[in-house]
Amino acid sequence: MVMGELHSRVDLAVIGGGVGGYVAAIRAAQLGLNVALVEKDKLGGHCLNYACIPSKTMIHISNILYQAKNSEKFGIKVGDISIDPKKMLDWRVGVSKKLEEGVGFLCKSYNIDVFKGAANFTSANTLTLTDGVILEFKKAIIATGSEPIPLKDFEFGGNVIDYKSALLMDRIPKTIAIIGAGYVSVEIGMMFAKLGSKVTIIARTDVLSKFDPDAVRILKGTMTKLGMDVLAGVSPQSHDATSVKLSDGKVIDAEIIIVAIGLKPFTQNLGLENTKVKLDSKGFIEVDEQMRTGDENILAIGDVVGEPMLAHKAIRQGGIAGEVAAGQNSAFENKVIPAVIFTDPEIAIAGDIEEKDGIKVVKFPLTALGRAIALDASAGFVKIAYDQNNIIKGVEIVSQEASSMISEAVLAIEMGATLEDIADIIHPHPTYSEALQEAAEAGLGRPIHFFYGKKGV
Amino acid sequence: MVMGELHSRVDLAVIGGGVGGYVAAIRAAQLGLNVALVEKDKLGGHCLNYACIPSKTMIHISNILYQAKNSEKFGIKVGDISIDPKKMLDWRVGVSKKLEEGVGFLCKSYNIDVFKGAANFTSANTLTLTDGVILEFKKAIIATGSEPIPLKDFEFGGNVIDYKSALLMDRIPKTIAIIGAGYVSVEIGMMFAKLGSKVTIIARTDVLSKFDPDAVRILKGTMTKLGMDVLAGVSPQSHDATSVKLSDGKVIDAEIIIVAIGLKPFTQNLGLENTKVKLDSKGFIEVDEQMRTGDENILAIGDVVGEPMLAHKAIRQGGIAGEVAAGQNSAFENKVIPAVIFTDPEIAIAGDIEEKDGIKVVKFPLTALGRAIALDASAGFVKIAYDQNNIIKGVEIVSQEASSMISEAVLAIEMGATLEDIADIIHPHPTYSEALQEAAEAGLGRPIHFFYGKKGV
Repeated sequence: MVMGELHSRVDLAVIGGGVGGYVAAIRAAQLGLNVALVEKDKLGGHCLNYACIPSKTMIHISNILYQAKNSEKFGIKVGDISIDPKKMLDWRVGVSKKLEEGVGFLCKSYNIDVFKGAANFTSANTLTLTDGVILEFKKAIIATGSEPIPLKDFEFGGNVIDYKSALLMDRIPKTIAIIGAGYVSVEIGMMFAKLGSKVTIIARTDVLSKFDPDAVRILKGTMTKLGMDVLAGVSPQSHDATSVKLSDGKVIDAEIIIVAIGLKPFTQNLGLENTKVKLDSKGFIEVDEQMRTGDENILAIGDVVGEPMLAHKAIRQGGIAGEVAAGQNSAFENKVIPAVIFTDPEIAIAGDIEEKDGIKVVKFPLTALGRAIALDASAGFVKIAYDQNNIIKGVEIVSQEASSMISEAVLAIEMGATLEDIADIIHPHPTYSEALQEAAEAGLGRPIHFFYGKKGV
Repeated sequence: MVMGELHSRVDLAVIGGGVGGYVAAIRAAQLGLNVALVEKDKLGGHCLNYACIPSKTMIHISNILYQAKNSEKFGIKVGDISIDPKKMLDWRVGVSKKLEEGVGFLCKSYNIDVFKGAANFTSANTLTLTDGVILEFKKAIIATGSEPIPLKDFEFGGNVIDYKSALLMDRIPKTIAIIGAGYVSVEIGMMFAKLGSKVTIIARTDVLSKFDPDAVRILKGTMTKLGMDVLAGVSPQSHDATSVKLSDGKVIDAEIIIVAIGLKPFTQNLGLENTKVKLDSKGFIEVDEQMRTGDENILAIGDVVGEPMLAHKAIRQGGIAGEVAAGQNSAFENKVIPAVIFTDPEIAIAGDIEEKDGIKVVKFPLTALGRAIALDASAGFVKIAYDQNNIIKGVEIVSQEASSMISEAVLAIEMGATLEDIADIIHPHPTYSEALQEAAEAGLGRPIHFFYGKKGV
């Protein structure tokens, strides 16, 4: 098949070349399907090009700069260190380009036809692409993702930008206001503060209001250290090129205003009305655990099918949808979808960590962990939620390298592991991952490095 | 009981206050035993005061310095940055002091009597301490650890030091020669190279000769970047205050010579001849899986009972010995003892990763991992060894944050997890831990981000 051909027939058409879509396409191609992948912008989608990867790249760079500047206690003397934002941008864009090319190479390797353009369902087995190509399919997978929600009176344009544009600036603004106080705001806010911006977060209620207050308290400590301001319980009213006016009358300086109030599923102009695909009340596409929509020919995955809108959920669903499209009986049966916030320290969560209905929660503070003390990184903890049989139901890690540690917790929960299973295996010393073991030991009434009182935990 | 009392009676005497010994003491005290802990130097032993913790602290500091200096690609411009070795030493010593005090606090909390001094068995139920105190015990645990092996013609003294002294210098030597090429040499060597020393490793055969050549190749790449020299296949012959002469006639500059050729168990002057404790041919104390020696009253744990001489093995054995001393039926039944080398990148290993006897090994290179590419950290890989039933037998991780990731592998091996168990759980994106999942997927013939050829893996 040649691109630009007027009429193509494929076993599977995947709409959206993000992390969900291309994984679905690769998996289906591995299983022998003839696959077309339609992407209107860049292979790799938001995650590779505008979100996860760029933000983690720039967060890493901001951490190097900040650590160098703030390690006097360790004996590191810095006379002069600075960031060249243009060069940082070059690296960050180069990374996305490399990853995008990597996805292109994988598609080519598996003979997946990549079509550039938007796709529109004209029936339950045909798509029309932007350039007029008609794609006839047996199965289709919708993987169109999501897009930032705009805010009234703060329409994107001028100095009002979304998180994607915030990760594409070639300068470090002196002042930044971030409207919205979810994890994206806090990640990006800390990053710019470390790079030298004065950052103000405008929170309707408070930062990370849906997260564990114990974790939020620690992040607020970092934000204070970084000179960030959190204005809680106010709304932005209006703005000009250099400031934002708030509901309480206060005016704050803001060269750049980042609106990060959430994401909405991307379902517009897909021609879904020509299919039996159904949306739920929130605008997400309804799917079953095999990722099937109301239309027997069509599956959907990723942000477009609901919360949590996380790349790794899309990746997992992509693999399943690719297999289901190829006739396998796969299903999304995961107990937990971990979440990581790449703040300082990182927060990683798997499962629920609330104390209720026979579920107990034990906490081990990093102030008692050798590695954390040694590296001046003891602001943090591990919490484990477990049931009457000591079966682990949830884990929260607030620590450096939490993003690397949480997978042990995911495996534990998925395998039905008990506190004993974590307490009695050997975690290498001295590592952050020992904190998980210490918490499990504490839950069993045999804590080692933290004294919970004469009566024990 | 009061310290200095001439004659004390305890349920349990623990000899050696290192990580194995104090854990044993705490565990036994939690179970109601009246415990004495005898330490001739500092609570926390080698690990807290001279080895694991100090080295990881200084490695961390060297990494901050090195990263700051070598992040031009990221846009970080450094005009002037340097290390104040006295201040670094203050921090490193302060950390050990804080941890030592922490152990003291724990002992006090559990009413463990700490005796300062060396201990000598005068019978199978009495110890005489340095200051004349006689300690009568029902059970004793020997946790005396190990000490650096000296080298003929390179006796410790002057500019010839062991790794402990290397971590207590108040200056960064211009030139360092390290005799021995095990993991301690490579860790310390990289650290000093990052801090500014010209480091030469003198290897009888080669660096890390017992490790996976694929991993060693990557570390050699780092060593080359750091300007380190590895002289393989030679022996040191003699030295003076500024140089070392080698068996091939070559003379290398060395202000400081670190001898790191291994550890030997510390069993001298313990009066073991007055007990039924037996040593094996290598000088280690023989124990069963309950940590019992040939003497029914005496247990032994940690370095003194054999390889691997790793802190976390001692910690685990300490917990078991404390429980066994208190009459519980605990035993060391762990399938794997992980090992971590805190090099750049880190190497972490759990289990055996050799291809043999129906065991296959799959490898996923970090050149295909988003996070590693983004952070310029793609020199590395994950290998998984698995059997005919896809049960995971071994994992090797060569990556940044490997020390935090390996615990997932340990849990997997201990629980009998299969490749599917790792492949089908959700690893957060973008993280290093995805590499483990990618390797598992590859082992199952469904790789995503690395193309293993048309025929698959």
